[in-house]
Amino acid sequence: MSTILHVHMTERSVQQLDVDSRLEKHGGRSFIARYLLDHIDPRCNALGPKNILILAPGLLAGLPLSSTGRLSIGAKSPLTGGIKEANVGGTPGDKLGRLGIKAIVVSGKAPEGIYILHLSKDGAELVDSGEMAKLGTYETTARLLEKYGGHCGVLVIGPAGEMGLRGAGISATEDLENVPGRMAARGGLGAVMGSKGLKAVVVDDAGTSAPAVCDEELFRQASRRFAKELIESPKTGKEGSMHRFGTVAIMGPVNDIGALPTRNFSRGQFEGVANINAEKLRETILERGGKIGQRCMPGCVIQCSNIYVDEQGVPIVSTLQYETLALMGSNLEIDNLDEIAMLNRMCNDFGVDSIEMGAALGVAMEAGLAEFGDGEGARKLLEEIGKGSVLGRMLGNGAETTGRILGMERTPVARGQAFPGYDPRALKGNGVTYATSAMGADHTAGNAIGTRNTKDPLDPEGTGDLSRGLQRVAAMLDMTGLCLFARPPIVADPDLMVQLLNGRYGWGWTVEDLVEAEDELLRMEREFNVMAGFTPAHDRLPEIFYREPLPPTEGVFDVTDEEMASTLKDL
Amino acid sequence: MSTILHVHMTERSVQQLDVDSRLEKHGGRSFIARYLLDHIDPRCNALGPKNILILAPGLLAGLPLSSTGRLSIGAKSPLTGGIKEANVGGTPGDKLGRLGIKAIVVSGKAPEGIYILHLSKDGAELVDSGEMAKLGTYETTARLLEKYGGHCGVLVIGPAGEMGLRGAGISATEDLENVPGRMAARGGLGAVMGSKGLKAVVVDDAGTSAPAVCDEELFRQASRRFAKELIESPKTGKEGSMHRFGTVAIMGPVNDIGALPTRNFSRGQFEGVANINAEKLRETILERGGKIGQRCMPGCVIQCSNIYVDEQGVPIVSTLQYETLALMGSNLEIDNLDEIAMLNRMCNDFGVDSIEMGAALGVAMEAGLAEFGDGEGARKLLEEIGKGSVLGRMLGNGAETTGRILGMERTPVARGQAFPGYDPRALKGNGVTYATSAMGADHTAGNAIGTRNTKDPLDPEGTGDLSRGLQRVAAMLDMTGLCLFARPPIVADPDLMVQLLNGRYGWGWTVEDLVEAEDELLRMEREFNVMAGFTPAHDRLPEIFYREPLPPTEGVFDVTDEEMASTLKDL
Repeated sequence: MSTILHVHMTERSVQQLDVDSRLEKHGGRSFIARYLLDHIDPRCNALGPKNILILAPGLLAGLPLSSTGRLSIGAKSPLTGGIKEANVGGTPGDKLGRLGIKAIVVSGKAPEGIYILHLSKDGAELVDSGEMAKLGTYETTARLLEKYGGHCGVLVIGPAGEMGLRGAGISATEDLENVPGRMAARGGLGAVMGSKGLKAVVVDDAGTSAPAVCDEELFRQASRRFAKELIESPKTGKEGSMHRFGTVAIMGPVNDIGALPTRNFSRGQFEGVANINAEKLRETILERGGKIGQRCMPGCVIQCSNIYVDEQGVPIVSTLQYETLALMGSNLEIDNLDEIAMLNRMCNDFGVDSIEMGAALGVAMEAGLAEFGDGEGARKLLEEIGKGSVLGRMLGNGAETTGRILGMERTPVARGQAFPGYDPRALKGNGVTYATSAMGADHTAGNAIGTRNTKDPLDPEGTGDLSRGLQRVAAMLDMTGLCLFARPPIVADPDLMVQLLNGRYGWGWTVEDLVEAEDELLRMEREFNVMAGFTPAHDRLPEIFYREPLPPTEGVFDVTDEEMASTLKDL
Repeated sequence: MSTILHVHMTERSVQQLDVDSRLEKHGGRSFIARYLLDHIDPRCNALGPKNILILAPGLLAGLPLSSTGRLSIGAKSPLTGGIKEANVGGTPGDKLGRLGIKAIVVSGKAPEGIYILHLSKDGAELVDSGEMAKLGTYETTARLLEKYGGHCGVLVIGPAGEMGLRGAGISATEDLENVPGRMAARGGLGAVMGSKGLKAVVVDDAGTSAPAVCDEELFRQASRRFAKELIESPKTGKEGSMHRFGTVAIMGPVNDIGALPTRNFSRGQFEGVANINAEKLRETILERGGKIGQRCMPGCVIQCSNIYVDEQGVPIVSTLQYETLALMGSNLEIDNLDEIAMLNRMCNDFGVDSIEMGAALGVAMEAGLAEFGDGEGARKLLEEIGKGSVLGRMLGNGAETTGRILGMERTPVARGQAFPGYDPRALKGNGVTYATSAMGADHTAGNAIGTRNTKDPLDPEGTGDLSRGLQRVAAMLDMTGLCLFARPPIVADPDLMVQLLNGRYGWGWTVEDLVEAEDELLRMEREFNVMAGFTPAHDRLPEIFYREPLPPTEGVFDVTDEEMASTLKDL
């Protein structure tokens, strides 16, 4: 990964430059933090010409290695006002790695029009794409694949991103169906891409090969061990819940501990859970001839994805995941998979985050704009986003804006971003992550759900330490491009990651170097946010979560300010 | 002023307590700052039960003294997120002074329903007022005056405050017509009052007299000198522009220097200015049998108010002022006084700030929701506030929310609050005040327009010092209850204010003590905001004002960060 692609949207020019030494050891989320700290004023308007959008694959991108092709996308977030990285599976990250591109840096703002960035081994060019303006992500992707070839990886924004809505994400094609089934969803990065005048990135890796590795023997041994451990694990192997069910495997446990967002985060268990849980989803898909156990990126041995189909076997959406099922299912009291799948498809097509939209719809339903449980009502509300009406723009700007306009106190957000599918009153470690992570409320920034059997989810004591440890793991994943599902072998033995990195780059790192890199990433993001105007006063959840008990566990969020402050203090 | 009235809305109880020594020397805005710092968590939800609403007359309230009856109202602002004070002329401040009430402290939140607080020399009580829920301020005020007597002073919120809209203010009756013609408009304090479940405060001062003064001779001499200087001044006397024209006297000069907000702050001079300026307003009112040169509060010798009437001589609104004429006139390119007066009346009736609404409408017009210059279009948009529609709630939440939803970069706000009628690119001292004052963008927090002849309004050098001096004067006015128009004799000789205060209270203050009290006020507000999460990164205007030149002077806002940081550093 030897080059950085500089895309100057104001001049509509593209430049390939070598990677300077300051950036060499940074990848993915870590590259984003270093680059933004060095190059933008953290006080800038996130949707203005001074923000920079970065697409950076992880350090292990492009290699014949399972589960390491996630692509980090980052910028100053128009949703949180702080630094943001959202990463996405699918094919573009891997293909960028094969093209030897360490990062795409998109700066400025096109004076008018909207463009496609086309990349191949022969170079990069910006192509006017006025005819695709305001098209949905499905149609845009289909047209681009038809034009450039079905082997390409494609990243696109929908009308939401073009309208500058703060809930807009960036969609990526996945390996199982060539559709925009994955999204770098959180933090409004689609709106940043739209503000630049960039509609899509097409990554054509024809004629490329995997990047060379420095120490072939070390890399081969480590990668084999990594794949073997994933395949043989009872969780990630073929008989494991991740392969069989995908992310929704977690729904039962989350409901059991009383943390499943229900009726706009007013309850922690959902009566209709059996209609939308892991077993029901698998059974429905298999009965109808859909697909289970698919991979989103090449080489993945876990294969957690699915293709959800209607009664006639026609695909509705891929891949239907836990966060969407929680935020657009239980949170809206919709216990019908077909309805949730349709809502998910609409979000994908408009190019908006289904977590943010589920939370916004929950707030809107509580305010009376539709009834809880009314799938058709939810669809009608979502349709407004496509129309660009004031109502649609309100929802598309996310839960906080929706709560602000409608005057609803129970608005589940931290740092401007909607809670994912874990109520922090029943899983307190997550509340600490939501409040302290530079990423805001995010299910991948340091999620405590995996610790529920070893640490009482209701106990506020020690949640600072817990969250810090989880945030470090998240940092490691996001700089290397590793999927969260593939973390167990690395968490069990961090030296395995060190071997992979040393094999690839010959850095001679130790485990301490890896930990320091994680901490450095968290420090850089914190530093950016301090310069953007964040203080410990922002490390909070909305007041109502400290006051209102959550049935059935009846706890409030009672993590002390001291515990909260301890989380990232000594990094 | 010996008592503080504690109104506990959760229990719906009222308690009168003596003033403790810590609060003794604080009045108005200064009382608010001290009390909020001591009693609330600055991180609290401004519309939640932990915020406290304070109504505090200035230190000179209730006395037979010109122009000193302004009432300060304050709380943590739901609009800015920081501490906020907005003060209002009219009759209630004076009457509270006569009742010996130093402050009304409203805490908690009524579990349901909406209440009237009735005050008289016989005590205070909360009265259920469910039948007035969602009524406009004109009708509510009329009913209350009918019930309690036309001699009462009344403070009310309209439907906007009850809906929790962040542009909502608190209206006060004025002396000239017993209608809600004055408003503590800025910062969303009406929404705070609504969140508590308080619809109105009725101040019945029957049977009271002016508070006793400590040193009668000193007070008499100082107050005579003060009145004499006001009467004899070429500006505030009977031949002066303030009496003859009121606040709109400033429109010509603001237009001349190119700082008059025009077409959503995209220009600084308005072609139609002659149709809405001071001369035109005076001429129109006099021709139609309206009134000019009225007083809003008892005893005022300046008498700057007016009653604007329609062609049949029927009152539309009192008092039609500069800020409204700028924000709803030139800023919307509406050059018709009748149309502006109608928009003003609608704002008054809903109980929303006409500055904030004018700015929000400007943004909405630029986004295409109505045409610039279209008074009927503007009226239709404002009507939505009364309906409580999503569109109305967006506008009612102010310019920043409107710009956020509609995706408009040119959104004229600082710290979440709309700019008043002075574009900061052509009056740079005001930009410094907008950005650095705890009050946010506010025409009374330190307005540089009066310095235009002695300091080049386009010159960024020295604007920190300039703004600091003006912010100190504003602090003095707002703690004593003095009207901005009556400041010249005090600014010329601060010892005159010291004599008034020593006459009233016997404190034995010097001018240095007065200056220290001003600085202490600014420090307290700054301290509150730091605890609420503000940093120097927030001392900024929106990025576009640094980039986009303003015709015809073609300047950008080029005050350096260092100059900005110098403003309140050494207080």
